[in-house]
Amino acid sequence: MKKITVFGGGTGTYVVLSGLKKYLLDLGVVVTMMDSGGSTGRLRDQLKVLPPGDLRQCLLALSEASLLWRKLFLYRFEKGDLAGHNFGNIFLSALEKNCKNYQEVLKTAAFILKIKGEVLPVTFEQVEIGVMYENGKILWGEKNIDTNYQEKSRIVDVFIKPKNAKTNKLAEKRILDSDVLIIAPGDLYSSVIPIFQFQGIKKAIKKSKAKILYVMNLMTKSGQTSNYKASDHIFDLEKYLERKIDMIVLNNKSIPQEVINWYQKEGEKPVVDDLKNFNFSAKIIKGDVLDTRFYGKDKNEKFVDKRVRSLLRHDPNKLAKILLKNI
Amino acid sequence: MKKITVFGGGTGTYVVLSGLKKYLLDLGVVVTMMDSGGSTGRLRDQLKVLPPGDLRQCLLALSEASLLWRKLFLYRFEKGDLAGHNFGNIFLSALEKNCKNYQEVLKTAAFILKIKGEVLPVTFEQVEIGVMYENGKILWGEKNIDTNYQEKSRIVDVFIKPKNAKTNKLAEKRILDSDVLIIAPGDLYSSVIPIFQFQGIKKAIKKSKAKILYVMNLMTKSGQTSNYKASDHIFDLEKYLERKIDMIVLNNKSIPQEVINWYQKEGEKPVVDDLKNFNFSAKIIKGDVLDTRFYGKDKNEKFVDKRVRSLLRHDPNKLAKILLKNI
Repeated sequence: MKKITVFGGGTGTYVVLSGLKKYLLDLGVVVTMMDSGGSTGRLRDQLKVLPPGDLRQCLLALSEASLLWRKLFLYRFEKGDLAGHNFGNIFLSALEKNCKNYQEVLKTAAFILKIKGEVLPVTFEQVEIGVMYENGKILWGEKNIDTNYQEKSRIVDVFIKPKNAKTNKLAEKRILDSDVLIIAPGDLYSSVIPIFQFQGIKKAIKKSKAKILYVMNLMTKSGQTSNYKASDHIFDLEKYLERKIDMIVLNNKSIPQEVINWYQKEGEKPVVDDLKNFNFSAKIIKGDVLDTRFYGKDKNEKFVDKRVRSLLRHDPNKLAKILLKNI
Repeated sequence: MKKITVFGGGTGTYVVLSGLKKYLLDLGVVVTMMDSGGSTGRLRDQLKVLPPGDLRQCLLALSEASLLWRKLFLYRFEKGDLAGHNFGNIFLSALEKNCKNYQEVLKTAAFILKIKGEVLPVTFEQVEIGVMYENGKILWGEKNIDTNYQEKSRIVDVFIKPKNAKTNKLAEKRILDSDVLIIAPGDLYSSVIPIFQFQGIKKAIKKSKAKILYVMNLMTKSGQTSNYKASDHIFDLEKYLERKIDMIVLNNKSIPQEVINWYQKEGEKPVVDDLKNFNFSAKIIKGDVLDTRFYGKDKNEKFVDKRVRSLLRHDPNKLAKILLKNI
């Protein structure tokens, strides 16, 4: 059975994992654990728990529990003291306050949600992400980086604090044993690259014989990857991975104009495929991986995050089929 | 197997059920559902859910789940947005928002907590309790009645709103099938008597051949049963039950002076046994049923409500032994 390990935050990994879950694969995910916004950020600040949001999405992606449990973990309270808080986040926080260690938190959540696979936080420490822009400015915190939409300067360096935060040993081990490492789509600097700042991860990836596959983002992200073409994503990823990427999955299905218009208001646009202009060693895999369910239909977003900024997604099933043909 | 049904709010039923749970009995509990204070009151007001607090305690009392699950259901968040909220209450509220009906809520909670017995809310409607004092004053709401400590006038009538709130049919059925009905200790007017205001309950109790046993309160309660002796409790209960009580369990172990002093500051005192002065038909059962673990030791209260007002409790094991000898 092929051993596949996915890297990323909550949304991109959800798309990759929920599609692959239907096949006979040994699945695992290394989760960023830097989220500092929304319900997760408030729980992290107020209760000093590890950020639960990304983990919750990964757990859900791999869950084979009944619909009720999955609905419950996605449920967001709308009113009163609990307004904006997600039940899954509250559950993980309460578990953390009552378990011996975070392994027991994950074991309990995995049992309840009937997880098919391994969910591995990149670290069990409280870690913040920081970036330096070309203009010399340094910004700390996932939420701050994520919402720094107006930034025109390019990100040129990334740090974590504490610098020598310990890597989850199980994540290192899994990377060494894997056949394929999949970098999920997602915000490059606030969700994806932070994982590669951990020394244990970096070393394991360099040592691992696993092939590395990147699922290219569909859209640019203002203030973080503004104006990025496909090549910019690869250059930046390879810089922090310190290894070449072996496969790149790109969407070639055209995006409806109304969706493009919507993103344009935010200063964002589809990632242009300019890979042929460069001498990348990676195999380029193109296909229709577009999720057509989310075109401006907020009501259909109830099973995913309600942030309108994530209007366009990869389709889990289309993506899984393309991945399976190539790994 | 003897079929036993307990009546009451959260704290008194917890004591009765957690002791009886260890024996081979068919246990069930009819729960008041009037709680309007604390975490429960806020969830009820803000989310329009049924009050979860008393149910949570009954579920816990009958739980045979691992210690972690029981700890989790008792866990109270201490800081931030969730401060004061109990995880069990949040869980029941989230279930209510995601289940088809409240039966499914209870079924799911019972499954997770491995419940040995039947937990039956007296109603699935939002119901408020009201009382009339001898001076003509009417007061609505469990929390308001519970905290009206300064009231000198005696309660002479009780109402529910809506007046014709539907009784849980399963509770009616269980009462008809029971061998013994146990009225748990607890605040007489805010936790116990409200159950007997439901027409379905009243009819079932009158029709049932089950014996009725009352576990007498240890202490008076300011503003609600101030200066009540044992006989006052029986007179009031029989008035609303419209049936005679068959057995009364009274504590005869002396209460330490330091505990009496503490209660005295609140205007409360041990319930005096004056039953011999009256011609009650009930069998009087006396014994040491005192829980000695709670004498002013707040740190030991972590597995129960932290309200200091509930300093003195019945001992579940001592009480169960005495109950078993007599039922």
